[in-house]
Amino acid sequence: MTEVRVALSPDIDRYLDSLVRSGAFANKAELVRAALVSFTSQAGPIAQGFDRENQLAPDGRVYQLEYAREASLRGLPGVGVVFDGGVILAAAAPQGKLVRGLPKIRRLADRLAVLASGLVGDAHMAVVRLREAKPKTTEEAVDILVRFYWEHSVDRSKRPLAAGLLVASALDGGGRLFYVDPSSAVVEYDAVAVGEGSEEMTEILEKRYRRGAAREAERLALEILGRPEKAEVVRVPA
Amino acid sequence: MTEVRVALSPDIDRYLDSLVRSGAFANKAELVRAALVSFTSQAGPIAQGFDRENQLAPDGRVYQLEYAREASLRGLPGVGVVFDGGVILAAAAPQGKLVRGLPKIRRLADRLAVLASGLVGDAHMAVVRLREAKPKTTEEAVDILVRFYWEHSVDRSKRPLAAGLLVASALDGGGRLFYVDPSSAVVEYDAVAVGEGSEEMTEILEKRYRRGAAREAERLALEILGRPEKAEVVRVPA
Amino acid sequence: MTEVRVALSPDIDRYLDSLVRSGAFANKAELVRAALVSFTSQAGPIAQGFDRENQLAPDGRVYQLEYAREASLRGLPGVGVVFDGGVILAAAAPQGKLVRGLPKIRRLADRLAVLASGLVGDAHMAVVRLREAKPKTTEEAVDILVRFYWEHSVDRSKRPLAAGLLVASALDGGGRLFYVDPSSAVVEYDAVAVGEGSEEMTEILEKRYRRGAAREAERLALEILGRPEKAEVVRVPA
Amino acid sequence: MTEVRVALSPDIDRYLDSLVRSGAFANKAELVRAALVSFTSQAGPIAQGFDRENQLAPDGRVYQLEYAREASLRGLPGVGVVFDGGVILAAAAPQGKLVRGLPKIRRLADRLAVLASGLVGDAHMAVVRLREAKPKTTEEAVDILVRFYWEHSVDRSKRPLAAGLLVASALDGGGRLFYVDPSSAVVEYDAVAVGEGSEEMTEILEKRYRRGAAREAERLALEILGRPEKAEVVRVPA
Amino acid sequence: MTEVRVALSPDIDRYLDSLVRSGAFANKAELVRAALVSFTSQAGPIAQGFDRENQLAPDGRVYQLEYAREASLRGLPGVGVVFDGGVILAAAAPQGKLVRGLPKIRRLADRLAVLASGLVGDAHMAVVRLREAKPKTTEEAVDILVRFYWEHSVDRSKRPLAAGLLVASALDGGGRLFYVDPSSAVVEYDAVAVGEGSEEMTEILEKRYRRGAAREAERLALEILGRPEKAEVVRVPA
Amino acid sequence: MTEVRVALSPDIDRYLDSLVRSGAFANKAELVRAALVSFTSQAGPIAQGFDRENQLAPDGRVYQLEYAREASLRGLPGVGVVFDGGVILAAAAPQGKLVRGLPKIRRLADRLAVLASGLVGDAHMAVVRLREAKPKTTEEAVDILVRFYWEHSVDRSKRPLAAGLLVASALDGGGRLFYVDPSSAVVEYDAVAVGEGSEEMTEILEKRYRRGAAREAERLALEILGRPEKAEVVRVPA
Amino acid sequence: MTEVRVALSPDIDRYLDSLVRSGAFANKAELVRAALVSFTSQAGPIAQGFDRENQLAPDGRVYQLEYAREASLRGLPGVGVVFDGGVILAAAAPQGKLVRGLPKIRRLADRLAVLASGLVGDAHMAVVRLREAKPKTTEEAVDILVRFYWEHSVDRSKRPLAAGLLVASALDGGGRLFYVDPSSAVVEYDAVAVGEGSEEMTEILEKRYRRGAAREAERLALEILGRPEKAEVVRVPA
Repeated sequence: MTEVRVALSPDIDRYLDSLVRSGAFANKAELVRAALVSFTSQAGPIAQGFDRENQLAPDGRVYQLEYAREASLRGLPGVGVVFDGGVILAAAAPQGKLVRGLPKIRRLADRLAVLASGLVGDAHMAVVRLREAKPKTTEEAVDILVRFYWEHSVDRSKRPLAAGLLVASALDGGGRLFYVDPSSAVVEYDAVAVGEGSEEMTEILEKRYRRGAAREAERLALEILGRPEKAEVVRVPA
Repeated sequence: MTEVRVALSPDIDRYLDSLVRSGAFANKAELVRAALVSFTSQAGPIAQGFDRENQLAPDGRVYQLEYAREASLRGLPGVGVVFDGGVILAAAAPQGKLVRGLPKIRRLADRLAVLASGLVGDAHMAVVRLREAKPKTTEEAVDILVRFYWEHSVDRSKRPLAAGLLVASALDGGGRLFYVDPSSAVVEYDAVAVGEGSEEMTEILEKRYRRGAAREAERLALEILGRPEKAEVVRVPA
Repeated sequence: MTEVRVALSPDIDRYLDSLVRSGAFANKAELVRAALVSFTSQAGPIAQGFDRENQLAPDGRVYQLEYAREASLRGLPGVGVVFDGGVILAAAAPQGKLVRGLPKIRRLADRLAVLASGLVGDAHMAVVRLREAKPKTTEEAVDILVRFYWEHSVDRSKRPLAAGLLVASALDGGGRLFYVDPSSAVVEYDAVAVGEGSEEMTEILEKRYRRGAAREAERLALEILGRPEKAEVVRVPA
Repeated sequence: MTEVRVALSPDIDRYLDSLVRSGAFANKAELVRAALVSFTSQAGPIAQGFDRENQLAPDGRVYQLEYAREASLRGLPGVGVVFDGGVILAAAAPQGKLVRGLPKIRRLADRLAVLASGLVGDAHMAVVRLREAKPKTTEEAVDILVRFYWEHSVDRSKRPLAAGLLVASALDGGGRLFYVDPSSAVVEYDAVAVGEGSEEMTEILEKRYRRGAAREAERLALEILGRPEKAEVVRVPA
Repeated sequence: MTEVRVALSPDIDRYLDSLVRSGAFANKAELVRAALVSFTSQAGPIAQGFDRENQLAPDGRVYQLEYAREASLRGLPGVGVVFDGGVILAAAAPQGKLVRGLPKIRRLADRLAVLASGLVGDAHMAVVRLREAKPKTTEEAVDILVRFYWEHSVDRSKRPLAAGLLVASALDGGGRLFYVDPSSAVVEYDAVAVGEGSEEMTEILEKRYRRGAAREAERLALEILGRPEKAEVVRVPA
Repeated sequence: MTEVRVALSPDIDRYLDSLVRSGAFANKAELVRAALVSFTSQAGPIAQGFDRENQLAPDGRVYQLEYAREASLRGLPGVGVVFDGGVILAAAAPQGKLVRGLPKIRRLADRLAVLASGLVGDAHMAVVRLREAKPKTTEEAVDILVRFYWEHSVDRSKRPLAAGLLVASALDGGGRLFYVDPSSAVVEYDAVAVGEGSEEMTEILEKRYRRGAAREAERLALEILGRPEKAEVVRVPA
Repeated sequence: MTEVRVALSPDIDRYLDSLVRSGAFANKAELVRAALVSFTSQAGPIAQGFDRENQLAPDGRVYQLEYAREASLRGLPGVGVVFDGGVILAAAAPQGKLVRGLPKIRRLADRLAVLASGLVGDAHMAVVRLREAKPKTTEEAVDILVRFYWEHSVDRSKRPLAAGLLVASALDGGGRLFYVDPSSAVVEYDAVAVGEGSEEMTEILEKRYRRGAAREAERLALEILGRPEKAEVVRVPA
């Protein structure tokens, strides 16, 4: 939180006091925040519509990509954990008495699996694209996904993909864990959570993670997910 | 329903009372809801036009896909039920003395059939696409449909498909039942209802469904549909 | 017609009375309907422009398709009737002393003919497309038309076709009668009327139709059309 | 002309009277017509912009096509007349001392000629398209033109062609006369006039036309055109 | 000039008088013209934006083509004159001490030359297109240019060409002179002027032109151009 | 500068005087100019948005091309001078202690070099296009550039190139100097300056230029550029 | 900073004083700046929307490219330094306990490496494009990148790339260092910093840089970066 101090003349101050007394605002700070929200919503890049398609706002951001990141935080959470002999992906399974679900985690090869977050259809197609390209190395797998995401972030006739993908790969040796986000950025992790509530989960992971055996990794992952009744767990051995 | 409490100053409160007394609103709660509706309809993603095409709203949703889901709830309802030796699809047939109709349920192969809900033309073309691709496995069949739906959810020069498809497949063994929705999401079910009134029907299904013989499945399906005069029923044997 | 009752406070009521007395409205019901029209025309999907191209409105409808259906009700009416040995198509011929016209009904093969309603050019091209594809079965013929219509209902760079086609086919045996509407929906009928005034004609058809010999079918068709001076009649034998 | 009667309260009536007395309108009828024009220009399909491109208005019309028909009424008029041994096309030639002009009527083959009305460039290209396709039958010639016109009536990235074509063909026997209008509709005539003033000319044609020898047809055509100083006449023999 | 008379009530008249007295307008006629300009600029096809791209206005015109004609009147003027043994093209050369210029008139073959008016780049590309197509007849040369111009008059993703071309051709015998304007219309002339001031020049040409020898044609052309210091003259012999 | 005189009534005049006295404007002329700016900015082609893309304004201009010419005046200036045995191109080099720069002048062949002004990327790509096409004559080189520029001036899905190119070519004999501007217009010069401040430089060139030896040409060029500390000079020998 | 002086009348001045006394502005200069901001935000190219896509503003700038440059200043900084035997690239590595990161610097060949700034996905794809093209000379490498950037700066259906690339190449001998910015401009440097805070870093570099041995270059680079805990350093030997 940033604190900003503003000096006000007595006249202005008295007018603000009267607005607070009228009951429209609980206190002066709330009033000032409301004024700022009102001002920026009229003058900022969002009000000017820079966030309506794949284009650049004056502050150098592509807002559609931020909204896509918001989308990738929707849906059931998932966790990835690197252990000594590979990587584990784990997710809570969807609920509903008659729902059998469709795997949130998909194994594409002996040494390659992905876990999706966000809009199901977008994630599905990224997985299809990856499967069809039959990558032989981890770098290739990541490049295929980045290209697919990127094409949807730069072309004004498309929209960004509203899903993130957690990639567990041991295609060329040691197990590695990547997260490809909707802006086509890639980050490598030792352990990470994605989807709804992932920010809190990642904080816990940072405190609890220690590289070890597969069994411990799986136990940690399920604990992070809140020990759901039904869960999917996939191991990618190095 | 979420309850939100708002503290109001006596001045504001009195003004609200006067509005209620003028008869414009039945009570103060109605007035506050109207104010909220008015506010969000001016400030929310819908008012800002994010729902006009395949693009992302600030909350990470693609509103055209939500509207397409709305479309898939139109038209005669249908039901799918997995039984011990396969899957049953059932639907009420269209009425009208001179209407012979066109099958709402279409058998594409001995072990593959689909039931459509929503805009007839969109569903028809998805079926044509599936039939022409001649899938050999259930996974292939689902992938073909997802791709077709997805292309219409991501390209700004198209609109999402306004139809859902219930797929009954025994292409590779045991009978399975999938619902592909307009956002290209896929969910597997033991039993499910689609189309108009499907939400209530699914609630009943959840209480009544028990996996059993084909005859019982068919009886359940027709009961869920309200025992229509004319009905189509298709069995996909495993 | 749905009746909606609204409770009004005396103040509001008195104000409405004054408006009626001022002569601007004939009575209070008319005033309320006008208020509703005004409100929905400002707030509804049409006012928001969802009806300007091939896209989905919040209620799940594609309004351009509804407008295309409206277009298909323009122009001279036509009638199709299934009889024991085939199908009859009949239409009033265009008037004007020097007009020889162009057949409203076109025979594409010995056992395939179509009758067009709506925008002439759109219908013409659908017929050309069908003729060039040389369908061998009734299902094939219907699929060709649906695909052509559908492409114009889903692509935002096109507009829907503003014409309907009544298809009489005996390509694979028994005579069948289909109507393909601008939304690419297909319905099979025993007998049906299309074009201007078709709704009333279909009501009469429902009362009078009985499957029989060709001669009776033709007599019924012409009667439905109001016994026009000049008429085209085409028989598709099974 | 349709007459509409409206009952008005004395108050409203008096107000209207005062407006007439103020001299802004000549009488009450003029005032009401002005009110209607004002209302429909704000609420009708035109005000809503449905007439800006190839799309459907709520009343089922494609307004750009109506505007293209308006365009086809511009430019020098032309006449086509079927006689016993073929068809005659006739048009007034352009004026201007140094203008040699370019034929308004173009012979494409021994038994095929066309006369253009409306935007010169659009008509020219339709003729080029027809000439290059080398049609062998009258139906083929008509289909080529319809397709060319239709493509410009359905694609939102194009505009309709602003020209009509009068086609005189004896490609497969008897001389026939067709008019292809900008909406790609085709009508066959015994005799017809096109271009500026064509509505009045066609009325006269309806009274005076009688099928006969070539010489009489030519005399009639030139009379209809007002016996211009310079004229082009082309005979297509059957 | 058309004269329109309007009857005004004394009240309105007095108000107009007061506006004139206030000095805002020189007299009542000026005031009425201003009112008309204001009204049509708000209600006419231009205000409604029909002139923004290649589309049809309600009056059947394509306004972008009219604006392109305006463009073709910009730049140095040129003259074409048919004489007994061919055609002469003449133009004033650009001024500026260090400017050597680029020929305004370009010879494409022994018997084909063109003179450009309007936007230099557009004219240049039309000439390139013509040169590359190597036309063998005058008709072919004209068709190539018409097609190039027309494509830019009908496609909404392009703009019309802002240049006209005066074509002098003796490709198949006698020398002929054509003007292709930005709407792709073609007119054949004995003599004509193009570019800035061409309307006045053509009026003089109409009085002075008489077909004769090459020398006289050249003298006439240069006189029409105002006997410029530097001039280009090209002869196309028949 | 054009002087326009306007007669004002005393009332209007007095009001203007009061505005001047209020101090908002320095004098009446400033006030009138402000009024004109305000009026034309609301009513002119620019306010109407004709300058937003490659399209024609009512006055026949393509405003984007004018803006591109403005762009070509940005950046370091350059000079081209024809001498007896070829052409010289000269430009000031960019400053900055660690900047080595990239040549502003690029030699494409022994007898072909270009100097760029305006947006660096646009100029770079025009040079790449020219280099790849390997022109063999001066006319070919110019045509390649014109085509590249023109494609960006006529297609609404692109923007004009924001750079000009000074071409020094001796590909087919004598050294020649061309300037291709963003509208794809080409002018041949004996000597010319481009980029920031080029208008003043060209005025000096017009007074000082005399065709002579290479050494004098180079001295003149550097003098025109203001004798910069670092400069690039390229000679293209004939 | 430019100083502009404005003469004000006493009336205007007094009014400004009162605004300052009311406390809305701290002093008169602040008030004048606010007025200018308000005026230009209503009248300038940004308010008119020229900055919304790849098009030219009246002042000859392409604002989207300026916004892309803003984007290239986001993200961790990096430094490039030429030394006697090659080039060094150095960057601070991303933080976060579980983040292993993805190299900010990528080696594409023995003698070619790049360092990215700005939007990760855009930079990644530029690197992929460069790697796939397998450049053999430094000039080729630069041309490949410029073309890729340029295509995104000129096509209205795309957005500019929001990333800059620092290229260290010794492909054809001596080590060279280029920066390709989002407008596709290229500048060669002896040493330069990119990314967040790069302007200050470059100022320090200008004072401290002296060409020397690899070890000194590396020491300087890390010092400029503020001696980060984790850093990537890549040497490209000449």
